[in-house]
Amino acid sequence: MTDLRDVTLRDGLQLTGKPLPTARKVAVVRELLDAGVPSVEIGSMARPDLVPPLADTLDLIRALDPDELARCWVWVATPRHVERAAEAGAVNFQYCLSASDAHNRANIGRSTEDSLAAMPRAVAAASAAGGRIQLCIATSFTCPFEGAVPEERVLAIARDPRAEGARDIVLCDTLGQAVPTQVTSLVARVAAEMPPRRIVYHGHDTWGLGVANTLAALAAGASEVDGALGGLGGCPFAPGASGNASTEDLLFALRPSWLTPSSFARIVRLSGALLDELGEPNRSRAAQGARTSATAFPWALGAEVSCR
Amino acid sequence: MTDLRDVTLRDGLQLTGKPLPTARKVAVVRELLDAGVPSVEIGSMARPDLVPPLADTLDLIRALDPDELARCWVWVATPRHVERAAEAGAVNFQYCLSASDAHNRANIGRSTEDSLAAMPRAVAAASAAGGRIQLCIATSFTCPFEGAVPEERVLAIARDPRAEGARDIVLCDTLGQAVPTQVTSLVARVAAEMPPRRIVYHGHDTWGLGVANTLAALAAGASEVDGALGGLGGCPFAPGASGNASTEDLLFALRPSWLTPSSFARIVRLSGALLDELGEPNRSRAAQGARTSATAFPWALGAEVSCR
Repeated sequence: MTDLRDVTLRDGLQLTGKPLPTARKVAVVRELLDAGVPSVEIGSMARPDLVPPLADTLDLIRALDPDELARCWVWVATPRHVERAAEAGAVNFQYCLSASDAHNRANIGRSTEDSLAAMPRAVAAASAAGGRIQLCIATSFTCPFEGAVPEERVLAIARDPRAEGARDIVLCDTLGQAVPTQVTSLVARVAAEMPPRRIVYHGHDTWGLGVANTLAALAAGASEVDGALGGLGGCPFAPGASGNASTEDLLFALRPSWLTPSSFARIVRLSGALLDELGEPNRSRAAQGARTSATAFPWALGAEVSCR
Repeated sequence: MTDLRDVTLRDGLQLTGKPLPTARKVAVVRELLDAGVPSVEIGSMARPDLVPPLADTLDLIRALDPDELARCWVWVATPRHVERAAEAGAVNFQYCLSASDAHNRANIGRSTEDSLAAMPRAVAAASAAGGRIQLCIATSFTCPFEGAVPEERVLAIARDPRAEGARDIVLCDTLGQAVPTQVTSLVARVAAEMPPRRIVYHGHDTWGLGVANTLAALAAGASEVDGALGGLGGCPFAPGASGNASTEDLLFALRPSWLTPSSFARIVRLSGALLDELGEPNRSRAAQGARTSATAFPWALGAEVSCR
């Protein structure tokens, strides 16, 4: 079973200019969960002045109920972030650091080593809240400042005993510059070394390989993948980065068991409305396909096309 | 070795409104070949009134020299097409029919059976010209009129003794609605049944899976793939179809041995200029990536990122 996590409200919104009201975010979370999307990343504890579109994350957490929060993730980078999000009600935390030290400094304001050193306290805080924590490794392939990131660097972080409490390893192609052969190699190595851990793949479509890389990651052992509605997104501290792999394109490719033609259509409608509100281009081809070939759509997704 | 064929001047131009002068087409062919692209599809013998952007195909053939024509393909649908293109100097012919009868009628004006029945004469004409011929099977996965196309239908055409003279089988996802599991299955079956024949995969990105499907086809046994600059293209007789898999995205993913950072940059520049001239959107993400992250580009493609 492949799980998809929609990260529109975190990674997706980071670069948008137009703020999305908290009430609208609540509605988006509920619509995604109700359509069947297994989990959603809803925001970040990053400094509000640095990432204004996510400044209301605590309010958003407080507006959701425990059943909803059980399926929601919050981006954190310090133990204090975990504590504050947990106080508001969050239970799932994505603890992020970068394989590249230069990107960690640009993104989080400290060295990768300092982020690793603080991780046991983050793990403890998540555990105290009865929650789960992931180790998210940004720039797992390339860094905008340092160039290519050696596989060994990513493996060393994943193996680091201070990360032991993390349930999952999230491997991120932050710049969208990885190619499938690289993704296959890194995911397979991480999967082989730490079998009890789940691997989550987080891909960007900057160079056109968002979906291809994500499928390569799944074939190599990842069990969950990230996407954003309409391919929205990008990292404000990674020059050249752009949209996430599109949730709609991933769903069209993967057709998880919970997806039906009507839930797919619902997600496409939500995506279309949301991106219009934000004034952002919809980069999802599957969403465009669904809109422009209405007659083709039911059987394109339906049982007549048998694929697993 | 994976070969890429650029089909910008045939499938790419079919839906464009603005005509491209023959002299400009000649320059595009030469620029592509000179940059190292192994082969190029340059036009079609379809009725000029039905596909006006390709009306000058015979003039284009006449303007190219024999060394160039050895790397150029011409779309044909009848024996007479082969004869006329061969008289002008063409030696490589892509004989096209559709797995779906309804699409064959819309696209070529006769039944699939009639197209198959005429194929031996097309093979003979190609052979008389000292040329090569491919059997191109459009709508190998879905048809805009008939819906899902059964694998057995495609296999029956590929196996048909009247197609025996074809060197290659071109499997086309005309609507871009296939998903990688389907592509893997069909390509593997065709490859298993007719080993001496090369399989060419022709994908569209309508639903976001152009690159992912193409990589799946290569992994399953295809040895050549089609792409168009900037993802241009679509079939005028297939409602809902849109752009081809982008040449730039495929090259970025595949990095064939002939590709260098400078030849890639050259192709990106050609694509940008050409799509601007045509007033068409550039759908290639890799081209956008190359343009927006100039500092990242050299090492993103260079030796530091080791991938095969």
